[in-house]
Amino acid sequence: MYTLYYAPGTASMVVHLALLETGAPHELKRVDLDAKAQHDPDYLKLNPRGVVPTLVVDGTPLSESAGLLMLLAERHPDSPLAPPPGTPERAAWYQWIVYLSNTLMSAYRFWFYPQELDDTPAVRAALQRRIEGVWDLLDAHLAVHGPYLLGERFSGADLLLTMLMRWSRNMPRPATDWPALKRLADRVRARPSWQRLYDIEGLVEW
Amino acid sequence: MYTLYYAPGTASMVVHLALLETGAPHELKRVDLDAKAQHDPDYLKLNPRGVVPTLVVDGTPLSESAGLLMLLAERHPDSPLAPPPGTPERAAWYQWIVYLSNTLMSAYRFWFYPQELDDTPAVRAALQRRIEGVWDLLDAHLAVHGPYLLGERFSGADLLLTMLMRWSRNMPRPATDWPALKRLADRVRARPSWQRLYDIEGLVEW
Repeated sequence: MYTLYYAPGTASMVVHLALLETGAPHELKRVDLDAKAQHDPDYLKLNPRGVVPTLVVDGTPLSESAGLLMLLAERHPDSPLAPPPGTPERAAWYQWIVYLSNTLMSAYRFWFYPQELDDTPAVRAALQRRIEGVWDLLDAHLAVHGPYLLGERFSGADLLLTMLMRWSRNMPRPATDWPALKRLADRVRARPSWQRLYDIEGLVEW
Repeated sequence: MYTLYYAPGTASMVVHLALLETGAPHELKRVDLDAKAQHDPDYLKLNPRGVVPTLVVDGTPLSESAGLLMLLAERHPDSPLAPPPGTPERAAWYQWIVYLSNTLMSAYRFWFYPQELDDTPAVRAALQRRIEGVWDLLDAHLAVHGPYLLGERFSGADLLLTMLMRWSRNMPRPATDWPALKRLADRVRARPSWQRLYDIEGLVEW
């Protein structure tokens, strides 16, 4: 049994999508970030850093959305989240999830919380360059090897990528400006899991 | 069969250590970073971003050291790299590897290549705070739940952590200043894999 502590449209989104893709029963608990509920003592017991998501798996609270995606894929091998172990696609799947997480998650952290680094035009420009450089690399990969990160086969890595693309929607150049990226996102956004998540989380903006 | 493209003491170290822990046969190819060999056209064919490591697995070149660690653990389930699937330790193992990779790898990138962000005292101080904040959190965890990240059980997550601790050795406050972290590193440094890597890569400094 799973319990997901989430906030709409945040990093919990990929874990929520992954749960929907597995079809596994799960309970949702919304964390009200506007009310700073992530700093409530009860939540900090589950998640000492006070971030979302937390996924409680068989009674144990866990964090790190990319790690939770990999854990759910392992626990639900019949879901579409990951290719089977031992295949070349499996190896590429690990690579892409870690690449997306290392490059984009960390750059976005500073983009959305600039005071944690130094809120200057030079730093903002550098972070924007860094994020756009990832779009360049991914778009070049997908144009040749797409439509998904693993080629013809959808996987949980595409859920992670589409969530991260979504976060760029109000940036000077959103990720959907890159054609092969937009094509991937269009496919992911057409999945029942994506549409169901929008209903449940009450999201409106892409 | 594995071929590892490495440079001594860099992010390839955790992949090299993981290979040694598995006992799997592997070929090593040194990439001479001083000669900018990571930008040679032949290397860029294997690794378009021009970074180390690259691990060639059954003919396919792959990157991202944390992902390679997870891949090797999956391919060698009898090695000490990871606890078995389905255990609570396995879930924590994913969490710690992603946490270390997301927080430390990205902060070090800017610490060692400040020109990629903005080389100002304020940015350096923020990065130092961020890295030291990770040592605070990990030391508090290990003091209660150690000696390893997963408790009594060594895993590949400890190899990744010790490599990342090593990178702080010339920082204002190295990670070994934190007692529970030092205790973990001492155990990892006493392993045959660590000592063998030092011989092979010709490392001298901790």
